[in-house]
Amino acid sequence: MSTKIKLGLFGFGCVGQGLYNVLNQTEGIKAEIIKICVKNGSKSRSLPDHYFTLDKNELLNNSEINVIVEMIDDPAAAFEIVKSALKSGKAVVSANKKMIADNFAELHSLQQEFNVPLLYEASACASIPIIRNLEEYYDNDLLGAVEGIFNGSTNYILTKIFKENLDFDTALRQAQDAGFAETDPTLDVQAFDPKYKLCIILAHTFGLFVNPEEIFNYGIQNLSTFDINYAKEKGYKIKLVAFCRRLEDKIIAGVLPRFVKPENKLSAIENEYNGILVESAFTEYQFFAGKGAGSNPTGSAVLSDISALTYNYKYEYKKYNRNKLEISNDFQIEVYVRYSTRKSIDLSLFSNIKETYTNADSGYIVGSISFGELRNSSWINRSDVNVIVSAENKFVLNNKTGTTVAELHGELA
Amino acid sequence: MSTKIKLGLFGFGCVGQGLYNVLNQTEGIKAEIIKICVKNGSKSRSLPDHYFTLDKNELLNNSEINVIVEMIDDPAAAFEIVKSALKSGKAVVSANKKMIADNFAELHSLQQEFNVPLLYEASACASIPIIRNLEEYYDNDLLGAVEGIFNGSTNYILTKIFKENLDFDTALRQAQDAGFAETDPTLDVQAFDPKYKLCIILAHTFGLFVNPEEIFNYGIQNLSTFDINYAKEKGYKIKLVAFCRRLEDKIIAGVLPRFVKPENKLSAIENEYNGILVESAFTEYQFFAGKGAGSNPTGSAVLSDISALTYNYKYEYKKYNRNKLEISNDFQIEVYVRYSTRKSIDLSLFSNIKETYTNADSGYIVGSISFGELRNSSWINRSDVNVIVSAENKFVLNNKTGTTVAELHGELA
Repeated sequence: MSTKIKLGLFGFGCVGQGLYNVLNQTEGIKAEIIKICVKNGSKSRSLPDHYFTLDKNELLNNSEINVIVEMIDDPAAAFEIVKSALKSGKAVVSANKKMIADNFAELHSLQQEFNVPLLYEASACASIPIIRNLEEYYDNDLLGAVEGIFNGSTNYILTKIFKENLDFDTALRQAQDAGFAETDPTLDVQAFDPKYKLCIILAHTFGLFVNPEEIFNYGIQNLSTFDINYAKEKGYKIKLVAFCRRLEDKIIAGVLPRFVKPENKLSAIENEYNGILVESAFTEYQFFAGKGAGSNPTGSAVLSDISALTYNYKYEYKKYNRNKLEISNDFQIEVYVRYSTRKSIDLSLFSNIKETYTNADSGYIVGSISFGELRNSSWINRSDVNVIVSAENKFVLNNKTGTTVAELHGELA
Repeated sequence: MSTKIKLGLFGFGCVGQGLYNVLNQTEGIKAEIIKICVKNGSKSRSLPDHYFTLDKNELLNNSEINVIVEMIDDPAAAFEIVKSALKSGKAVVSANKKMIADNFAELHSLQQEFNVPLLYEASACASIPIIRNLEEYYDNDLLGAVEGIFNGSTNYILTKIFKENLDFDTALRQAQDAGFAETDPTLDVQAFDPKYKLCIILAHTFGLFVNPEEIFNYGIQNLSTFDINYAKEKGYKIKLVAFCRRLEDKIIAGVLPRFVKPENKLSAIENEYNGILVESAFTEYQFFAGKGAGSNPTGSAVLSDISALTYNYKYEYKKYNRNKLEISNDFQIEVYVRYSTRKSIDLSLFSNIKETYTNADSGYIVGSISFGELRNSSWINRSDVNVIVSAENKFVLNNKTGTTVAELHGELA
């Protein structure tokens, strides 16, 4: 982009303010805010009135504005804005993970058709430059897996639980009070937010545009004191881990809580920080960590995208269709399943049961099960059941195990 | 680079073989090895004879070759090769940290003058994409500090010492046997290798081309069992830490061993891994970790540079001359100094002494001293003296403290 960056901002909430702060203190980047479209005209603002408008067309039809920065909450409205902007040749920077994950294929086509970049580094793990690294540095086809803590809100809650011996409800309330969890925490706690991020990372890791509904997400809402004590007795923490991994020509992916040993790099990622492990054929692993939320880290990632536009940077999606990979749920995963009534769990689904425990109120099993069958089971959504992936978990394609340890079920039936 | 990449390789040792392995298994990158210049014609090779030559001009004058990959040991010979290649319009990829650090300003000029890229991601921390990230993602002027473990060889030795209770000499021998330390380990053990890497990182963090001789490096060669026990009693590890940090308009930089607490992210970086902390105004910190040595990680970084050349990537050195920053040794640093005879240490150099200890054979002090005066002191190079930076260290410009706690010296004189 040879001309100076002239910004049209949609939204001036937490991220917008963060961007304004960061932009204001960064001499190196020549970008100017021209206009800001907001939903509520009566709020008092930190900038003069003439910057603000309620009419999106004042930005979209303004030929002076060459970059639209979309930072609003509503994914459907955001998508309309982004589409209009791309179609009119304006570059777009967005932090809206749900909007991107839900419309990835179409957004990809629009970028190609109108030859205009859409950048969204801030949409996944805020300040960690993971998309840029997957896209640029790991641009060949040797990536084996990307997994990590993609949600700062639940990580803050889990840190509170383990560091301060709180139960889930108390930790959630404290996270809300500290501004690290939303009033309606569903998207975070039920692992939708990290799933959207995982979809974005899937595109840049394996070249797959996956509908978020295809990906199994299971949150921490059913975490009980029993589960927490189980983890502590073993010296584990519990982290909400998003993963995607290549097994032969299949890609497996999901977001579930996981027991994590102290030597796992993710164990040290606390509070609102995110951490990402990247496995590749030749480097073994790489680890990235940084703040996964907050106005300034997110604003800083948005600014980094704006800066990249000054030298005509765009995602090339080089991995798209390079490999004929497809998502599969047809693999074995080892899980801990805690329940109040054993008969509510269909044990015949398990190919292998390693441990079983029962007391007066509850019990658990540790065993291997097909990921697809776990997801589709009748009992997974019971409020008196909780599922956590084993610390020792090895992912194996179903057809590779060949073992159905049916006899083990005898003693449990 | 619109045409296909045709490679001329200088050197076919560990890194060259690694590159060949990686290139061979990576379908995504269309690059072909045309010719390899080696020093020794009689070695048996894993490739057919027609690839090899002893004459550098067979590569430099070959118009089919558009990218030179320089992977030889001799920095002076490497510099001549790189200069010739750049002048003839061939892009260059190099992993030679000393060659780059020693000739940075000239290499920068040549890139500008002949408008041809020189990439060297593999030269600093091998598989960790730190240069690309500093250059692209942290391209504005808000970086506060970069510090980390930049040398896999000494980190392997220090890991052995702390995990297996070995003394320095035994750990060094084991590292040599395992191929993680050179037969002549001077460059690693005396911290020259991480200093060259720090010089490269300084250019991409703060836009400074610094002569390596300006930077103080102090290695782990004097590490004694006394020092190791001191660290263990406090629950610390010792890591060889390279750092650069902005204090107002000054940049401070150096490589010294440091006591590291368990909660420091660098504490968990073991064996040949490297770890890098990046502090910036808006993201607090970012952490990168990965393999810092080895043929495949280094080959993989070289390949990533080759891949970047396919889309005309080059370093833009945007921070160069943006800020009028300069290197300064005029700051206070808190250090542990162990000695056999206290009178060999000039205590009057210390502005503050926090601790002192003496037994029959040796003693130590913990105190603050000007970095420049520490470097220039008469006793720093004594073999019976060892210096380790405090775990609690805060770097402060000299003129900011205003305290010379001369009275403390009374009791120590």
